[in-house]
Amino acid sequence: MNIFVVNSGSSSIKYQVFKMPATEPVCSGLVDRIGLEGSTISYKTNVNGTGQSVSNTLDIPDHEAGLELVSQLLTHRDTGVISNPDEIQVVGHRVVHGGEYFKTTTRITPDLKQQLKSTFHLAPLHNPPAYSGIEVAEKIFKKAAQVAVFDTAFFQSLPPKAYRYAIPNNFYNEHNIRVYGFHGTSHRYVSALAAEYLQKPSGKLITLHLGNGCSMSAVKNGQAVDTTMGFGPLEGLIMGTRSGAIDPTVIFYLVDQLGYDIHQVSNLLNKRSGMLGLTGYSDMRDVTRAMQEGNAEAALAYDLYAYRIKKYIGSYAAVLNGLDAVIFTAGVGENDALIRKLVCADLDYLGIQLDEEKNGSREKGIREINTAASGVKILVVPTNEELEIAKQCYELQK
Amino acid sequence: MNIFVVNSGSSSIKYQVFKMPATEPVCSGLVDRIGLEGSTISYKTNVNGTGQSVSNTLDIPDHEAGLELVSQLLTHRDTGVISNPDEIQVVGHRVVHGGEYFKTTTRITPDLKQQLKSTFHLAPLHNPPAYSGIEVAEKIFKKAAQVAVFDTAFFQSLPPKAYRYAIPNNFYNEHNIRVYGFHGTSHRYVSALAAEYLQKPSGKLITLHLGNGCSMSAVKNGQAVDTTMGFGPLEGLIMGTRSGAIDPTVIFYLVDQLGYDIHQVSNLLNKRSGMLGLTGYSDMRDVTRAMQEGNAEAALAYDLYAYRIKKYIGSYAAVLNGLDAVIFTAGVGENDALIRKLVCADLDYLGIQLDEEKNGSREKGIREINTAASGVKILVVPTNEELEIAKQCYELQK
Repeated sequence: MNIFVVNSGSSSIKYQVFKMPATEPVCSGLVDRIGLEGSTISYKTNVNGTGQSVSNTLDIPDHEAGLELVSQLLTHRDTGVISNPDEIQVVGHRVVHGGEYFKTTTRITPDLKQQLKSTFHLAPLHNPPAYSGIEVAEKIFKKAAQVAVFDTAFFQSLPPKAYRYAIPNNFYNEHNIRVYGFHGTSHRYVSALAAEYLQKPSGKLITLHLGNGCSMSAVKNGQAVDTTMGFGPLEGLIMGTRSGAIDPTVIFYLVDQLGYDIHQVSNLLNKRSGMLGLTGYSDMRDVTRAMQEGNAEAALAYDLYAYRIKKYIGSYAAVLNGLDAVIFTAGVGENDALIRKLVCADLDYLGIQLDEEKNGSREKGIREINTAASGVKILVVPTNEELEIAKQCYELQK
Repeated sequence: MNIFVVNSGSSSIKYQVFKMPATEPVCSGLVDRIGLEGSTISYKTNVNGTGQSVSNTLDIPDHEAGLELVSQLLTHRDTGVISNPDEIQVVGHRVVHGGEYFKTTTRITPDLKQQLKSTFHLAPLHNPPAYSGIEVAEKIFKKAAQVAVFDTAFFQSLPPKAYRYAIPNNFYNEHNIRVYGFHGTSHRYVSALAAEYLQKPSGKLITLHLGNGCSMSAVKNGQAVDTTMGFGPLEGLIMGTRSGAIDPTVIFYLVDQLGYDIHQVSNLLNKRSGMLGLTGYSDMRDVTRAMQEGNAEAALAYDLYAYRIKKYIGSYAAVLNGLDAVIFTAGVGENDALIRKLVCADLDYLGIQLDEEKNGSREKGIREINTAASGVKILVVPTNEELEIAKQCYELQK
């Protein structure tokens, strides 16, 4: 089954093509700066171990033009991986927010497009471009099923005690204000792989998606029972540029005493805080370098970042009443051995024992980095959201 | 040593007199509605098991007039417990916020009054009346040492990783924005009593102050290492009228999409949320009654309230890398057996085992409510902030 996976942003389209059940994409690429000066398109194939790549700067006025260009490359005599756009059987769209309506991966019918529009207010920056992506893909891949895979869907299994806020009920009943959670595709992917690896489908797992955005999830019997992100993607862990959890009193203080307006506060907490605010660097590799050079602010930021994670591990062990495995994924989670070490230190009351040598290895694929005696498995599981989207489309349409 | 303990609010003065080292106050009372219509004063003595009480409604224009009236009752031929105001050797003032400057109970000199003024911006509703209380007490109890006991002092032992927020450093360096924590006098009092009871001065303790305001603290070797309240008293647990922790994105949404101004949001989260927002009742006894009558909102609120506590217990067990005892105190903590049951349920991975019969008993004083086999002690320790203030004054001045 030929599946075209697409992630439409406001000025970009990331895409991959899978020939499922094969799990390696046959091509992938990015259309960027759509509608802006200097639009670019990149395209790379990988068929039986050999490939070609194309990279161009040209005028791409809108998403339709962008996807049209991709379609031409896909079917081109020299670079193509299919001979006709109609050979794409499913287009799998990443959609950030499914609200409470979209609890699973869903084939988007005209009816459901209206339903999707009703989620715009919950993710005004992300859902409208995803919606446009669907409309454009319908025109170009006319024979394909359009399928939406939601970042929030994995967390629709949360119980009310985990998703409700302690504010008057009408904010939930009338305005849909609740915990949604994000990065669900990644948490689902790595928790399923870990459960398979551990041969424990009913395992008690904590997944740590540590990228530029960061979130954690408590998973039991393959279902999410809690997560650190909330109504939006700001809550919980400290991230590249986001503060994570912060006392709302700070916000009131910034407005009342320091003269901020609410948009400045939002900008501050979303774009100028986290590791960037503490160190001047949003990329963990830069923070590490600064720390190794003796920068005290970087050392403090590392400490804060790991301490926050450690507290959620404890919290989720309580939610799960025990723990089988901790799973690290995404850029920082997969590559930053020091963070993993700080996070796992001094948790032997839970039975967590990191093997420092295994932790330091840079092997690919799923790997176990706990000691043989550890009561809790510690795994590094590389995430792959595009593959998870393709898999879900395949499951739905096969 | 005669110690007059005073808690000055914007329109009230709560007071007690101790003859330390005796731990029972010889008198206590409240001046209320100061400067408002229908001011009242109550006064009650307890000397060798017998006592008198006085209760009057009269004109009390300001704190000075109120404290003057108390002083007259204290020295009155019929109701007095001392013969002269000069017999008061220490006035112990409860002060909510000590900023970073006041790390311990402190005798307030003229120099330090300036320092105290510099904390006003951190607690604009609470510190100015406490300051006035000091100035008035200086006039009336001329011979007494004026001592300030800070609600925040117990948490000055927190490490930076627990008290810093992940926002740009200048907000801490220039504007003192950090976690301060509150209810410190209560957490210190019950954790010290528990450590003594357990004969474990180096114990790993979690204290739960569950009153109308609610907070938790992780304590190791008698020192606080983390706490749930933050820069202000809104963060953390769900309370009578406060939301506790909430994704800041909700605040931005209320302003951007629902047209709230920031003061309305602050009012909503501080005064109309928590149990009140979820059930219509801020008093836990009313919530319990509603739940027992089958009210589903009350049942959900109970669930949320207990779940949030449970997550912090897990979190603090991680911070402490283990756990010796959980300590319940304050109105709800001391009296609500159902909350204690919900909180302690399904935590056997930590070794927590509640004894349901002991939990249901309404005995006074410190009591142990875990089973004999429980790996973690569960204690109910009645709090007594006034006594703790008197004790600290006594230690400082004896």
